[in-house]
Amino acid sequence: MKNIHSNPMDGIIALPAFPVVFVTSDKNIMAAGAFHFYSFEPPCVMGGIKPEKYTHRLIIDKKEFAINIPIKEQLDKIQICGSISGKNGNKFEKAGLTSRKANKIDSFIIEECPVNLECKVVHKIDYPGSHDWFIGEIVEVHIDEHYTRDDALMFWLGQFRTVGKIIEGRPNNEIFVR
Amino acid sequence: MKNIHSNPMDGIIALPAFPVVFVTSDKNIMAAGAFHFYSFEPPCVMGGIKPEKYTHRLIIDKKEFAINIPIKEQLDKIQICGSISGKNGNKFEKAGLTSRKANKIDSFIIEECPVNLECKVVHKIDYPGSHDWFIGEIVEVHIDEHYTRDDALMFWLGQFRTVGKIIEGRPNNEIFVR
Repeated sequence: MKNIHSNPMDGIIALPAFPVVFVTSDKNIMAAGAFHFYSFEPPCVMGGIKPEKYTHRLIIDKKEFAINIPIKEQLDKIQICGSISGKNGNKFEKAGLTSRKANKIDSFIIEECPVNLECKVVHKIDYPGSHDWFIGEIVEVHIDEHYTRDDALMFWLGQFRTVGKIIEGRPNNEIFVR
Repeated sequence: MKNIHSNPMDGIIALPAFPVVFVTSDKNIMAAGAFHFYSFEPPCVMGGIKPEKYTHRLIIDKKEFAINIPIKEQLDKIQICGSISGKNGNKFEKAGLTSRKANKIDSFIIEECPVNLECKVVHKIDYPGSHDWFIGEIVEVHIDEHYTRDDALMFWLGQFRTVGKIIEGRPNNEIFVR
């Protein structure tokens, strides 16, 4: 039997899981579950950032960010980055992550993450809500030669998960260009 | 070792997995992997639809859609809905799914899906790309009393997956309001 929920937020809570990523901008790191692709052509991704976050100001100022995809073994780093603000110190140091200057943007990427997408902000979505969504065009991609999607970490309100097993589709070695 | 990829689309392919949903508008169904929340307050979700899709025209005309979260056992229904266009016949019938008139919008929802979010379109994102993203404010929520996030189906380019196991966080019975 289905129940009707008077609080529409219950519908958002019911969503399953999304990739959790590190958003870096300038020399700061933010853990984010609000992330998706935006367009295949041009290749763009988007990230949703609450206006009160330190990263929000950095993205507005720098007009760029990088998406760093962690592996499930980096859960503790996600939790550290999610529990402190970059206003109060260097999160690379606090989380024990290595910063590396990006190639085509001025910000830093996370060396330990197997995938880094360097992005230039091309649009801020013009509709008010709890998050501001920034669309970034991908300008440079770094992928570890051993990375597969199986390594990733998923999250949605209250729960971290691994990526589930493939039940239909191509094996990883047919998906990735090395 | 990381490789630099000259094709930025390789970065989009590297994304792990996203929930796959049925988008219904009017009496039509579309299977979609381009879906995320947009805002907690007001509670909004967003879906990315290629302009050539039949559903794109329906959403433009009706200014509404519903998000129907399938369970992994409905993979075959997803594949049927993903392989034909609503221009050529009733996809509810072709996929063997039951249509039910929504409560607060004029479109139909899928009875067999454990979660249905009725949404009114409040914004179309104004940046060009392969997909047009529509933001919908949630106006009514239906959730099956037995649903948990473990039931959902995930997808990204070439691979359907189950939701992975919880490695940190609260058990399902602490997440869902019944």
